[in-house]
Amino acid sequence: MSEASGDEAAGDSAGREKVPSKLSAASIGLDWTKVRCPCCISDRVEPLVLVKLGEKVGPETKRWIIRLIGASQKDGGAALLAHPGEDASGDIIVVSAPRCTLLRATEELGLCKLYRNGDMEAFSYSDRDNFKDSDNMEEFLTLAERQYMVKYELDGLRAQRDLRIPGLPDSCTLHNRDNIWQKLRSFGVIVDTFPLHNPDKLKNLSEAWYSGNQLAQPLDSVNEYFGSSMAFYFSFLDFYTWSLLPPALLGLTITYFSGEVQKEMVESVSGPQAGDVEGDSEPPVSGHMLQAVFSMLWSTVVMELWKRRSSSLSYRWGTLHLAERFAEPRPGFHGDLGVNPVTGRVEPLFPEWQRDLRMALVSVPVVGLFLGLVVLGMMCFYWAEAQVQHLHNNWDSLLSQTLLYMPSVLHIVYTNVLATVYKTVAQSLTEYENHREESAFQNHLTAKVLVFTFFNYFAVLFHIAFFKQDVPLLRKRLASLLIVTQLINQVTEVVIPFLVDRFISAPHRTESKDDPQEEKFRNQGTLPPFPGLFAEYIELLVQFGYLSLFSCVFPLTAVLLLLNNLTEIRSDAYKICKLFRKPFSPPVANMGVWQIAFEVLSFVSVVSNCWLLLLSPRLQEMFQEGGMSSTNVLLLAVLVEHVLILIKVIMAVLIPDEPDWIRKKREHIEYSSMQALRQQKLQSEES
Amino acid sequence: MSEASGDEAAGDSAGREKVPSKLSAASIGLDWTKVRCPCCISDRVEPLVLVKLGEKVGPETKRWIIRLIGASQKDGGAALLAHPGEDASGDIIVVSAPRCTLLRATEELGLCKLYRNGDMEAFSYSDRDNFKDSDNMEEFLTLAERQYMVKYELDGLRAQRDLRIPGLPDSCTLHNRDNIWQKLRSFGVIVDTFPLHNPDKLKNLSEAWYSGNQLAQPLDSVNEYFGSSMAFYFSFLDFYTWSLLPPALLGLTITYFSGEVQKEMVESVSGPQAGDVEGDSEPPVSGHMLQAVFSMLWSTVVMELWKRRSSSLSYRWGTLHLAERFAEPRPGFHGDLGVNPVTGRVEPLFPEWQRDLRMALVSVPVVGLFLGLVVLGMMCFYWAEAQVQHLHNNWDSLLSQTLLYMPSVLHIVYTNVLATVYKTVAQSLTEYENHREESAFQNHLTAKVLVFTFFNYFAVLFHIAFFKQDVPLLRKRLASLLIVTQLINQVTEVVIPFLVDRFISAPHRTESKDDPQEEKFRNQGTLPPFPGLFAEYIELLVQFGYLSLFSCVFPLTAVLLLLNNLTEIRSDAYKICKLFRKPFSPPVANMGVWQIAFEVLSFVSVVSNCWLLLLSPRLQEMFQEGGMSSTNVLLLAVLVEHVLILIKVIMAVLIPDEPDWIRKKREHIEYSSMQALRQQKLQSEES
Repeated sequence: MSEASGDEAAGDSAGREKVPSKLSAASIGLDWTKVRCPCCISDRVEPLVLVKLGEKVGPETKRWIIRLIGASQKDGGAALLAHPGEDASGDIIVVSAPRCTLLRATEELGLCKLYRNGDMEAFSYSDRDNFKDSDNMEEFLTLAERQYMVKYELDGLRAQRDLRIPGLPDSCTLHNRDNIWQKLRSFGVIVDTFPLHNPDKLKNLSEAWYSGNQLAQPLDSVNEYFGSSMAFYFSFLDFYTWSLLPPALLGLTITYFSGEVQKEMVESVSGPQAGDVEGDSEPPVSGHMLQAVFSMLWSTVVMELWKRRSSSLSYRWGTLHLAERFAEPRPGFHGDLGVNPVTGRVEPLFPEWQRDLRMALVSVPVVGLFLGLVVLGMMCFYWAEAQVQHLHNNWDSLLSQTLLYMPSVLHIVYTNVLATVYKTVAQSLTEYENHREESAFQNHLTAKVLVFTFFNYFAVLFHIAFFKQDVPLLRKRLASLLIVTQLINQVTEVVIPFLVDRFISAPHRTESKDDPQEEKFRNQGTLPPFPGLFAEYIELLVQFGYLSLFSCVFPLTAVLLLLNNLTEIRSDAYKICKLFRKPFSPPVANMGVWQIAFEVLSFVSVVSNCWLLLLSPRLQEMFQEGGMSSTNVLLLAVLVEHVLILIKVIMAVLIPDEPDWIRKKREHIEYSSMQALRQQKLQSEES
Repeated sequence: MSEASGDEAAGDSAGREKVPSKLSAASIGLDWTKVRCPCCISDRVEPLVLVKLGEKVGPETKRWIIRLIGASQKDGGAALLAHPGEDASGDIIVVSAPRCTLLRATEELGLCKLYRNGDMEAFSYSDRDNFKDSDNMEEFLTLAERQYMVKYELDGLRAQRDLRIPGLPDSCTLHNRDNIWQKLRSFGVIVDTFPLHNPDKLKNLSEAWYSGNQLAQPLDSVNEYFGSSMAFYFSFLDFYTWSLLPPALLGLTITYFSGEVQKEMVESVSGPQAGDVEGDSEPPVSGHMLQAVFSMLWSTVVMELWKRRSSSLSYRWGTLHLAERFAEPRPGFHGDLGVNPVTGRVEPLFPEWQRDLRMALVSVPVVGLFLGLVVLGMMCFYWAEAQVQHLHNNWDSLLSQTLLYMPSVLHIVYTNVLATVYKTVAQSLTEYENHREESAFQNHLTAKVLVFTFFNYFAVLFHIAFFKQDVPLLRKRLASLLIVTQLINQVTEVVIPFLVDRFISAPHRTESKDDPQEEKFRNQGTLPPFPGLFAEYIELLVQFGYLSLFSCVFPLTAVLLLLNNLTEIRSDAYKICKLFRKPFSPPVANMGVWQIAFEVLSFVSVVSNCWLLLLSPRLQEMFQEGGMSSTNVLLLAVLVEHVLILIKVIMAVLIPDEPDWIRKKREHIEYSSMQALRQQKLQSEES
């Protein structure tokens, strides 16, 4: 690798070329800290993570932090490599990781890697030599994994005894088992910790991803560069976009052949016309019905197939057997010190029942309150709208005309304020629930925000469909939502950040080849932090909701979504590559709570579609001609609904969640670990 | 143990006291075969299993079988101990097992046993000395486990090459990898293989179980003597019976306070009376509604709590980590020889997709056909009944009066014939599906019979409730079913076998203390084989169905069931101890497919109860007074149903399936095996 380093973005930095013999442990100069073990000595050190210090942090504090990062784990350090940047008293520390620390972290995280027999196997540090490429970290681990591991080690730093931090006032002391990184952040010593971009890799990735006219995304490279949580999002986006093809084709066919829908669609845009629905030569099964039944079954099949794809991706990316449960708890976790009954390690413990109690008695009521506020807001909006309409009809004046807009404006303001407040509240509620694992924390937080957002987006549509029972209004609303929100999303997500970046941030960040390395690193810190995948997933979920819940009233939904997603893939890719700071991405085995959200939606779709079928003007007409009473029609709809739910459940049970070959691999791993356990007992006995 | 052997039933048998030095491997005399390893030498050998040979089996074949049973596993034998009985040419072989074989089977089955640190741990042969009581098989393993292991070893015998069996015609040869025991059975050489009772233990068990007025069952002793599948049945029966208390109390209260129900119940027995439902001072919420909502929630809570209890029982009985998937396939399994991708052993393989195809293209249509025949039968019955009623009204004669009974009689005959045919068909279908594991075979067989039986039992009730919509008829039918079928069940299950045993079988089986041991063994073979728990579980399931689906129309259901179950526990216990041959019982971790059947029923109960609520005369009346249209009432019912299903799903998700302490134990075992796998890779590397 060392001959290629001239090409590398960071290759010409003074701090990069490291000859271990030059280092001395005592003085921390302008070079990387010393590596601890001979196997980790390598010709070049790759800068992985940048730590930004507070402005007022003195050089002695910086020295202390660098020493802490470099100290071995048994001395309470992170066993990483630190570089003070160009200036020993500057406000950045560049962090990298030696081979041993990375390999141990790979084992601790439970990542699977390619074994010499060609299978993926859970990595074992003691067996490292039998894993492919385990001597070359840049091949063995992905860039995202290496960077996450640095964060993992830094976040895992805990004080081994009470101590004072040099250069800080006495109020800033660490107590035994305090999480050091978290405390330093709360003292203002550390402002930011973020992974560094690798400009060459980024360039290659963006060329393969969004610059050309590619149909397929380079998912493996995305996983390599941005990590598996990001790669899972883009895989799902890809999978979902392709699976939009059948409903899109169906939608086009229906629109083409069914005069009824065309007419209704024209109406929905140009307002109701005189002639009502009275087509004569129409087939007995309307497009409306076809679309409803199709989208119910489609949503199940898509989600089941995605689960299978998801499990093969997680095998491919080595995240099938993550050991998060057995790892150290996440930094924010607190509790009384005790022996973990599972791993036998001393760590903070927090009783499960206490967490359950907090969720039941605090989180659930608070979330319920906010949902109530959403509904209240909607009701007030309808009430106020009726009032001003009434007012306007009575006194037609300019004042009353402006008043007509008041309810909408107030409602939008109210909804936004509520959403902002709710996000903060959800964050503190989830903190208070004190989850042990990062993934549990994220899932609970996501679930909370999800329920609220779902309510926010769909409450109005459900209200129109179930209470007002007004299909044309629903169609109109759906069409405008689809078109308007997608435009708005694309603009807010890409165009605005792009403009801000180009015209406001970039001028301050003019970068040239000759800039010192440190300047380039520092520049990355000026980009806004990546806001997370929440908004992206929500967008997909809302889309999926429009499609599976309501698409039967507007058959072109899938076509519009397909078009949107084809650009969405590119714009998301551009955004994440160019407009934001690179995010840390923990290895994950699936989409987590989002998977459940999509599946729940696909069940709700049965109820919603049956109901919309019932409201379908064609069906109403047919039944009236057939002389069926409305009660019997309703009974029939309920029966159909139950049968369809049954079919959905049976399909979900019958389609296995993982492909056969993955199941065999998994069982093989389970079998070997069972065998190994038996062997080990014997050996521990003999020794 | 040897000083206690005088007390033991088999203690004075000539074959029991074995001094290994006396044995010679060459001649097979009237004694136990030789043990292979020094650790297995013990003072006494416990007769575990009796093999009954065909009448025409010659002494040389018997000698060959005995040698096969005694041969070590690498020579293709079962590594068990065999005893030829009193007479070297007699038609029985008594089989026992040495310590080593039992311990190896314990490991292979994946049983957990008490480790020296007091936890249950998966047993490991190489670590045997650290498990409690591992030197004393009668303490270490339960009697049922020891007997099942003998069967497991015998069933696992496979020919290592093509061979002729001495004393049999040339047509009876074994091919390589043939299952020997299965072939011998098909040749008629082996008639029966059954476990032997231990009279003393049986006496103790029956005293603790059903002779006195005990409220609690000795479940651990049942597990020890009859094995975990039996113990799970009785545990569930026990749990379920206690959980009937709340609905029974509610039912009594409702019956006491609600005049309406009393009147309707009187009507249901004495026929409808003139005065219709017009109570004035009745409370607005009728007992009917209370009972409906209660039984929906009750059934969920009971099933969730049972799952928790079930997992703690399986921990207690050491069956939490059964390794059935990794064990040899079941005897009936056939396929092309190949390398199992999971365990790496050579064994018959059968592709998954082929099994799926067979299920989809053969089993499902055939089962569907039979279900159709049930419905057809019911429809013919109703049609015929209407016809003869019509006929009787027109020509009232003696002939027409007898004809009135014809439809019922024909329907009963038809149903019974269909059920018998179906059982055979289901058996062959499941054979044809060629499942690898015994439990998979049993579950698929049970599921097939279950669906049919369920249809058979409930089709009529559903027909009355949903199509005829006749609550009084439903109540009448339910009451008569509850009382009549329970009486019939008790009689056919216990009284008839008891009478048969006492007056027909027993006189041929007069047993005295002085009888030779062999005679006592032989006598056990004259008892009928135990028909399995299928009928018992079905009875409970049907009960549970009556209660959760329809009990709101007849509040005393739970009381009747409670009374029935209190006697059922005793009569089942008596039956299994006295009236049948002892069954083999494989170790199981839960109720298998029955668990699912009960849970499905508890979901169906929501639909059924909501519907019955809707039919409730009180509610109908209230709504009419309130001026609601029948469509709106129906809509309300659908809404209530959806909300209740939602509540049920949320409850099922929120109540964890295993108690917290079991989860920790399980995770601990997973963690240790993960650690062990990493260690082992290193060691296999070093060696």
